[in-house]
Amino acid sequence: MANLFTHVTFVGFGLIASSMARAMRERGLCQRISVVDNNPTVLEKAVALGLADTATADVAAGVREADIVILATPVRCFAAIAAAMRDSVAEGCIVSDVGSVKARVISDVQRHLPSHVAFVPAHPIAGTEHSGIDAGFSQLFEGRWCILTPIDDSPAVAKVQALWEALGSNVALMDAAHHDKVLAITSHLPHLIAYTIVGTTVDLETTLQSEVLKFSAGGFRDFTRIAASDPVMWRDIFLTNKDAVLEMLGRFTEDLAALQKAIRWEDGQALEDLFTRTRAIRRGIIAEKQDN
Amino acid sequence: MANLFTHVTFVGFGLIASSMARAMRERGLCQRISVVDNNPTVLEKAVALGLADTATADVAAGVREADIVILATPVRCFAAIAAAMRDSVAEGCIVSDVGSVKARVISDVQRHLPSHVAFVPAHPIAGTEHSGIDAGFSQLFEGRWCILTPIDDSPAVAKVQALWEALGSNVALMDAAHHDKVLAITSHLPHLIAYTIVGTTVDLETTLQSEVLKFSAGGFRDFTRIAASDPVMWRDIFLTNKDAVLEMLGRFTEDLAALQKAIRWEDGQALEDLFTRTRAIRRGIIAEKQDN
Repeated sequence: MANLFTHVTFVGFGLIASSMARAMRERGLCQRISVVDNNPTVLEKAVALGLADTATADVAAGVREADIVILATPVRCFAAIAAAMRDSVAEGCIVSDVGSVKARVISDVQRHLPSHVAFVPAHPIAGTEHSGIDAGFSQLFEGRWCILTPIDDSPAVAKVQALWEALGSNVALMDAAHHDKVLAITSHLPHLIAYTIVGTTVDLETTLQSEVLKFSAGGFRDFTRIAASDPVMWRDIFLTNKDAVLEMLGRFTEDLAALQKAIRWEDGQALEDLFTRTRAIRRGIIAEKQDN
Repeated sequence: MANLFTHVTFVGFGLIASSMARAMRERGLCQRISVVDNNPTVLEKAVALGLADTATADVAAGVREADIVILATPVRCFAAIAAAMRDSVAEGCIVSDVGSVKARVISDVQRHLPSHVAFVPAHPIAGTEHSGIDAGFSQLFEGRWCILTPIDDSPAVAKVQALWEALGSNVALMDAAHHDKVLAITSHLPHLIAYTIVGTTVDLETTLQSEVLKFSAGGFRDFTRIAASDPVMWRDIFLTNKDAVLEMLGRFTEDLAALQKAIRWEDGQALEDLFTRTRAIRRGIIAEKQDN
C-alpha cells in the first residue's frame, strides 16, 4: 500500500501505539516513525525493535517533522502534551489519539492546539489485559472497531479513517458524548465491577483467598483478567468519563438491589426470567461477530 | 483402565453428565450406562449417541441396577429424585452428584436415601456457557478441580475420588459449608453480577443497546458469556446458596460504593491503589495454572 503518511509521531508508546507501529511498518503505511515517551527504557526498545527511527522524551522535538501525531498516553496527560507541542507542530499536521474517553479529551486537546492543526479523535476498541511495548502485536486491530468522533468536517477525518482501515479495523463515526455513554456500559462499567470484585477478595481471610485463586475457574477468573488492566490508564478513564460512568453505575446498582431482593425472598421466577432474557443479549453479540 | 464401576446411572443428562458419560465410554470406566431424564428428546439422543445403554424417564426404574447413581439435574430437584429412588436403589450403591451447592444438597438428599446407600457429594469446577447434551465433550474435566465434601469416612469416598481422577480432574476435599462460601465468591457472585450488568443493558434505549452489542469487545463481551449460562441451574444455585451469596454480595456492594465515591470525588490515588492491588490477584491465578 502506498504511504498514507510521511512521518508519524507517537506520544506514549505502550500496547496500542507499539501495535500500530508494528502494523504500519509491516504494511508500509508511513516512511518514518518517531516515538516520544517519558520512559528511557521504552525509547531504547522502540529503536532496538526497529519501530522508531527517532526516539525522544521531548514532545516539542518529537512532533516537529510529523504530518500526523498520535496521542497514546493515559488520557489525563493529553492536555499537557497538546500544550507542549503547540509551538513546534507543523502547519497542516493531523493530531489524533487513541483514548477511551472522547468528550473530555476533545476539550483538553483543542484548547491548546494551534488552529492550523486538525484534531481527529479516535478510539480503537481493541486491547488485551497486558500493557506496554512488549505486549504489542501488529494484528491487534484486525476485525475490531475503531470509533472516530470528528469535531468538524476536515479532510483529515478521511485520512485517519483510511489509516484505521489499513490497520484492519472497521471504522464507525459517532458523536463524542454518545461514544462516552456507549463505552461507559460496554467497557468502563465492566472494568469497574471487575476491579471491585477482585478487590473484594483481596480483603478475604488468607485461607479463603488462596482457595479463591485455586478454584477460580467458575467465573471469577474472567474478572481477574479484566482487573489486570493498566491501573493508571483506567484511573484516568474513570476520572474523565465520570458522569457517564456514574450514571451507568447507578442503573446497575438499582438492578443489583432488585436481584438481591429476589434472592432474599426466594423469588425463583424473577431470577429465571432475568437469566433467560440475558441469554438473548449473548446471541446478539455472536450475531455481531464480536465474539473472539 | 479396569472398570471402576459396573453400572452407572445418570439422573439428568446435560452438559456435565453427558461429558462424564463420553469420557467414561472412551476410557472404559464402566460396563453399562443408564440415563434418566424427563426430556424424551434427551433420552433418544443419549441412546443414539451410544452414551446410554438404557434410557428412561422413571427414576426408580433407572437406578435399580446401578452401583453408582450420579445426580446431575438443577440442584432443587435433588430431594424429589432421592425420594423417588428410595425403594429401588440397590444395597451398597453409591450416590453422588455434580451440584454447585453442597450444604443444602446434603440435607436434601440425605433425609430421603436409605441407610444402606453411601452419599458422596461432589462438585466438578468445570463447564461452559453452553448447556445440554449436545454441548458435552469428554475432555471437559481434564486439568480442572473436582471438590468432594464427604459427610463420613465411607470407602465410597475413595471410589468417587478415583472416578474423578480417571476423568482427568484434580480432587480436593472440603467441608460443605466452606465449599459454599468459596464458590459464592469464585462463581456465584460473578454470575450474579454478570447477569445484572447484561440485564441492565436490556433496559437501555434500543439504539444504545444495538451499539452495546456492536462495541462489546471492551469488557462487556466477557460478561455476556457468563450471563448466557443455564437459567434454571443458576436460579437453583442462588436459592440454595442464599446465605453465602448474600454475604459476599454485601461485601461487594460496600466495596463498589467506596469506588463510586472515589470516582465522584475524583480521588485518583484511591483508584490507582485498588487497580494496582487487583493485578496481584491475576498473577496468583496464573501461578495456580487455572488460566485457560
